[in-house]
Amino acid sequence: MKVAKFGGTSLANAEQIRKVCDIVLADPDRKIIVVSAPGKRDRNDTKVTDLLIALAERYLAEGEAEAELAAVVERYREIARGLELSEEIVDVIEADLRERLKLDRSRPEMFMDALKASGEDNNAKVVARYLQSKGVAASYVNPKEAGLLVSDEHGNAQVLPESYEYLRTLREREGILIFPGFFGYSPAGELVTFSRGGSDITGSILAAAVKADLYENFTDVDSVFSANPNMVKNPQPIEKLTYREMRELSYAGFSVFHDEALIPAFRAGIPVCIKNTNNPSARGTMIVFEREPNGNPVVGIASADGFVSIYVSKYLMNREIGFGRRLLHILEDENLSYEHIPSGIDDISVILKEDRFDAEIEKRVVERIRKELAVDDVVVQRGLSMIMVVGEGMRHNVGTTARAAGALARAHVNIEMINQGSSEVSMMFGVQAVDEEKAVRAIYEEFFQSGPEKKHALEKETVTNR
Amino acid sequence: MKVAKFGGTSLANAEQIRKVCDIVLADPDRKIIVVSAPGKRDRNDTKVTDLLIALAERYLAEGEAEAELAAVVERYREIARGLELSEEIVDVIEADLRERLKLDRSRPEMFMDALKASGEDNNAKVVARYLQSKGVAASYVNPKEAGLLVSDEHGNAQVLPESYEYLRTLREREGILIFPGFFGYSPAGELVTFSRGGSDITGSILAAAVKADLYENFTDVDSVFSANPNMVKNPQPIEKLTYREMRELSYAGFSVFHDEALIPAFRAGIPVCIKNTNNPSARGTMIVFEREPNGNPVVGIASADGFVSIYVSKYLMNREIGFGRRLLHILEDENLSYEHIPSGIDDISVILKEDRFDAEIEKRVVERIRKELAVDDVVVQRGLSMIMVVGEGMRHNVGTTARAAGALARAHVNIEMINQGSSEVSMMFGVQAVDEEKAVRAIYEEFFQSGPEKKHALEKETVTNR
Repeated sequence: MKVAKFGGTSLANAEQIRKVCDIVLADPDRKIIVVSAPGKRDRNDTKVTDLLIALAERYLAEGEAEAELAAVVERYREIARGLELSEEIVDVIEADLRERLKLDRSRPEMFMDALKASGEDNNAKVVARYLQSKGVAASYVNPKEAGLLVSDEHGNAQVLPESYEYLRTLREREGILIFPGFFGYSPAGELVTFSRGGSDITGSILAAAVKADLYENFTDVDSVFSANPNMVKNPQPIEKLTYREMRELSYAGFSVFHDEALIPAFRAGIPVCIKNTNNPSARGTMIVFEREPNGNPVVGIASADGFVSIYVSKYLMNREIGFGRRLLHILEDENLSYEHIPSGIDDISVILKEDRFDAEIEKRVVERIRKELAVDDVVVQRGLSMIMVVGEGMRHNVGTTARAAGALARAHVNIEMINQGSSEVSMMFGVQAVDEEKAVRAIYEEFFQSGPEKKHALEKETVTNR
Repeated sequence: MKVAKFGGTSLANAEQIRKVCDIVLADPDRKIIVVSAPGKRDRNDTKVTDLLIALAERYLAEGEAEAELAAVVERYREIARGLELSEEIVDVIEADLRERLKLDRSRPEMFMDALKASGEDNNAKVVARYLQSKGVAASYVNPKEAGLLVSDEHGNAQVLPESYEYLRTLREREGILIFPGFFGYSPAGELVTFSRGGSDITGSILAAAVKADLYENFTDVDSVFSANPNMVKNPQPIEKLTYREMRELSYAGFSVFHDEALIPAFRAGIPVCIKNTNNPSARGTMIVFEREPNGNPVVGIASADGFVSIYVSKYLMNREIGFGRRLLHILEDENLSYEHIPSGIDDISVILKEDRFDAEIEKRVVERIRKELAVDDVVVQRGLSMIMVVGEGMRHNVGTTARAAGALARAHVNIEMINQGSSEVSMMFGVQAVDEEKAVRAIYEEFFQSGPEKKHALEKETVTNR
């Protein structure tokens, strides 16, 4: 049995939904289908989820939003017509939306969740109707009825352990089950959504619950690539990568997949396959527990900008027991999580994400560090990028660091920071944001484009005295 | 005005003391002379300080130690004879020692400090007598009378700020001043010793107090070397290094100089010169605030073994605010200070010194980490060495990392950890202890032995697939 999840662009219009249903019917093992809300039909389009947010916001503000409601209903009408379905399904959807709008507006988080999640919920009904119209034994499954119980955290629901037992019984149901992604229900019976990437989470939970042989994640790319195609021209596709590699790559901007969504599947040992709805015959990328070495210590290179470093120096710091702990405590009080902590003898730097570290927080943090830790110096440096080089073959491969650092040197990229030694499958280089693309390209070329016949001589005069 | 400090081997016997006095008289700026206790005359000899410890220990235990007392007195008698001094000075020293033995034995720390410090104190008297016997205007200075006030921590005294004002008046005194190193007096008037390297500390304090033009530190080597001579054959001498470079090198086993001794001189901006008593015409090594680049980004390579890493992994660790802080708190509760904290996405390693991390503490720490942090895995790895590559020219020199990592790769040394990015003047590589010497040699060769005509080609096949 397979669980297949289809993303928003895979279900953006009638034509896409036909493709999806063809894919579903092409493999009798595809039994549980998780659907997103209709996504963008082209670059300038608006996702149904965003239409729903606009609807909810206006209704919350003004108690009326007929134009916004009509826009949502219109999207489904167009889809229904394209699929040659009776208009009755559109009436069902409109009635459903009007029902949701009656919810308690004094609890805007709950109200917003209910409206947003209707995108997936109603799309699941449409897909089920379409399969039924073609004579397929398919049915829409309501997450409440199926027992997808989650914690009461709107926008960040966590699955409750008992859900797995309830959801396991989906195995016994006849026909193809169409399950809306993105939300579950609290024990009190209230709809609660997952965080970003929520449909992936639903698919992963279902795959774990029914002990699927495979969790297929259909999106709009042929595979995961070994580098960002916006930085590297035609990067190599990755055929297989391990969970650990995926997790490390996800950290620094591999946006194909919301990595935390994998946890339930990961814990249950279910392999995952990333495939392309628009090119289902492409092999895709398998995410597995273990893979055979393929001769390249590196499987992928990711990068992310928006990091800041707080450099703290104090003579004899390394004698002061508790210094690092107290420094981290100051950040914790501001609810900031750190990413890396390179340290020297008399200095330590904390690298964190810039987005939450605004000027006001910076001022408070710097003041507290000066005052409470009696340091000699504190310097904040913004505009850093992290380059993540990932591969299971890395740890015991003498020279991988030298090759990566050599590639950066030849590209004239100064290494601001290296974090290597805890993770066995990655090393991270901090560089100036302006050097990020150059750095990714240089490392990519070193590990993916230079065949054994092409040798890089790390010659002295090319790397020193500049 | 210069402050010159002479170490134990420089004052081990009459011949050495003559050399020292010749050095002192050769430069009229050498006005304040700090002396250690007589050190070893040859490899199998015993230092006077160790004789004094034996004397104090036996006396504490048995209330009698005539044999040990005689051994100390005999050393001074031999020196006095060699310097053709009257035996009266030996009587003065014996009387002084017998006076010290009358101190309160119920306070063994105080008692031990008083006996140990007599080594420096009485040697200062001998040196002053010798200079006087040659018609030089020289006088012994008692640290209590001069106002060297310290905190009441036996064996770890900290200088009190008011000392600097009192000691500044030494400038006004006539003639050459012979000042015993290693100890000061608490405000209550009790003798208290500094930590290891204590005579260096005294010299550094005096240099700062009198605002010396130079603090000369005479020892038994021509200079500080760019690598450990036990690992690298005939390593290059270092002509100049900055305070920061010295401090980073000291961390990993550069034992010529006790780096913390430098603090007072460092804070007062006094340059320091390391010179050889046995070869005073050698240029020695200058320790300065700033130096001109000399074309080599690296000034020295140090290494130390005896490190252990505690690897901790937990899925989604990087989302857990406070994780690192709580981990460090557990170590702090055991009074353990950490050295480095490399981190991955879902894992963090803490590198610390092995000497205090015994099996019992390991068991407690690992149990607490498992229990209190609910981690997936904890692994302790012993037998790590740290290689410290130091140089002011490093930070903005693209390719230094690549060269060092390349040298390690060619020597088939696997890099277990890299800590780079906080200190601007060092990078640190963690390797298996068995690879330590090989690693130091490889990096030394790369930065010190390969002229521009000798090129290292970092060829792929030499560094991969192993």
